[in-house]
Amino acid sequence: MSKGKKEPERTKRPTSYDVARRAGVSQAAVSRAFSKRGYVGAEARAKIEAAAKELGFRPNALARSLIDKRSRIVAVVIADMYYSFYVAILHQINGALRQAGYQTLLFSIPSSQDLDTIVDDVGDYRVDGIIMVSARLTTDVARMSEALGVPIVLMNRYADQPSVNFVVPDDHQGGRLVAEFMLAAGHHRFAYIAGIEGASTSRDRGDGFRAALPSSPQVKAGDFSYEGGFAATEALMRGPAPPDAIFCASDIMAWAAIDALRHEFGLRAGRDVSVIGYNDAAESRWRNYDLTTVVSSPDSMSHRAVEILSALLDREATPPVQERLRVHLKVRGSARVPSDYEAENVEMETGR
Amino acid sequence: MSKGKKEPERTKRPTSYDVARRAGVSQAAVSRAFSKRGYVGAEARAKIEAAAKELGFRPNALARSLIDKRSRIVAVVIADMYYSFYVAILHQINGALRQAGYQTLLFSIPSSQDLDTIVDDVGDYRVDGIIMVSARLTTDVARMSEALGVPIVLMNRYADQPSVNFVVPDDHQGGRLVAEFMLAAGHHRFAYIAGIEGASTSRDRGDGFRAALPSSPQVKAGDFSYEGGFAATEALMRGPAPPDAIFCASDIMAWAAIDALRHEFGLRAGRDVSVIGYNDAAESRWRNYDLTTVVSSPDSMSHRAVEILSALLDREATPPVQERLRVHLKVRGSARVPSDYEAENVEMETGR
Repeated sequence: MSKGKKEPERTKRPTSYDVARRAGVSQAAVSRAFSKRGYVGAEARAKIEAAAKELGFRPNALARSLIDKRSRIVAVVIADMYYSFYVAILHQINGALRQAGYQTLLFSIPSSQDLDTIVDDVGDYRVDGIIMVSARLTTDVARMSEALGVPIVLMNRYADQPSVNFVVPDDHQGGRLVAEFMLAAGHHRFAYIAGIEGASTSRDRGDGFRAALPSSPQVKAGDFSYEGGFAATEALMRGPAPPDAIFCASDIMAWAAIDALRHEFGLRAGRDVSVIGYNDAAESRWRNYDLTTVVSSPDSMSHRAVEILSALLDREATPPVQERLRVHLKVRGSARVPSDYEAENVEMETGR
Repeated sequence: MSKGKKEPERTKRPTSYDVARRAGVSQAAVSRAFSKRGYVGAEARAKIEAAAKELGFRPNALARSLIDKRSRIVAVVIADMYYSFYVAILHQINGALRQAGYQTLLFSIPSSQDLDTIVDDVGDYRVDGIIMVSARLTTDVARMSEALGVPIVLMNRYADQPSVNFVVPDDHQGGRLVAEFMLAAGHHRFAYIAGIEGASTSRDRGDGFRAALPSSPQVKAGDFSYEGGFAATEALMRGPAPPDAIFCASDIMAWAAIDALRHEFGLRAGRDVSVIGYNDAAESRWRNYDLTTVVSSPDSMSHRAVEILSALLDREATPPVQERLRVHLKVRGSARVPSDYEAENVEMETGR
């Protein structure tokens, strides 16, 4: 859009050249002084600092990047932003990156778009690394990392490649926790509303759930969306064997399940049918949902993802770094509570 | 974190120097060739392009920024990210910026943080401009723009300064639309649940609402949050004159109002009390809310904000550029519908 345009005069920010001229030193000396690399004599340094102060010069991160080859910018690739859990993740990553001296270059893509296509977009910028949320099992992370020449850390979901770096919730454990809680509450007709095929979250949560049940649950795909969760619940409840306990692979589908039960069947979650979700997104605390759910801490995950990326960049860690974080079950009102239930990693919402 | 560390060898991306060496030309010639500025002979250009191809060199946006002083990066400053409407805005801005050849550098801040403090953070990066969502009336945009030397465009909310650029919904019109709809439906006990003090949205929506009513509505602050909207609704309904029509300055407070009516008072929105929101955020289409609301198109606003910023950067527009976009009322089930109501800027949800 601006190619060939005249340089706007408005953006008259002082440059390192202006500082050099005023200080009577070379531009290279100014660069060395602000990058803290290489030798600058005490006298020259004093002159440079005085000149920089007079001119209001601030060496910016991009300018530093020319010197030390770091841009201090990390690409965050995220899909499905309409779900508040991902927003919480984005907010947390952004905060953790800033604390670590990096800034977020955002690549938000439609969930239908292939993550692999992001390579060209990210490649247009010089980024130090990539944090990728909502990968698929098939995402070719190794190829992307090689093509871009920077490390990639996956978050929340992993890809089925041996060499990838990731930090994810222990989803198998999460599924087991839910099954054990439902069994202890006396349920015996189980259903699992899965997310999208190809997401490690959906697969592992279902596998953990199934592994701890005496018989296979019914399974319906809910697409990680409100509409999908609603339709799956309707199909289950109108089917030949309506479940009395429904585990949803994400909170948004659980909210839909609760609404479908109320508005389509006149049933109340927690009294008539138990509904348990996964993520503990903000709406789960709303009065209308009051959702019992697996807490997959976006804050801890985000901080670890940034720590891992930093360690890889500083060569203090060797790939692959792979971590599964413990999860716990937050007990609220949408699922029947077993009497005298005590288990590790299960906690009552305070104030109950 | 990485200061003084040895340069990692991994990021061995070919540089313009490598291309120059292989092509047997100067680095300056490579820069000219890729920036499309200045003269490069045909033969040299052919050699440079061949060398770049062989080496897999791609001139990245940051490298270009050295040449034309544009970084192709726009800072997007956003607060209150936990409300899905802001997420939609962020997603739309990001898409519009990419289409225009820019990328989003994200600055998400807690809503409690003073926006003015962002100057230092943004100043650490070389950005071409700033799009600021969720400004306050008191935000000193002129000072920020001067300090950073780049244009700023406000979105969704404006600041009370004569010189600022902004694109906002016509909030006064929105408030009037709601009042006229409620009056036509026969309501006569009105309440307004406001947002935070200091937001142009909250003030103008309330002013427009009030201006079209025969008498002043009751007003409660709802803080633009679920909890705030819930508490405000409780206070109104337990008060001496419970309203029969509640206008909320944002959808999230309207969802809370609907939940409070149902769970605290056994009342149904649309039948017992009319509730109207503002934004048409995703959840408003959920079965549980089915919210009648003012549509303040995040897509149009985002696209205009990017167009305005581009025009300012290309000096095709002169500040201040100030736009108020028409809004319309989307009629769903949460408010009583006047019989035979026909008005401009009011539309029934299709499929009703």
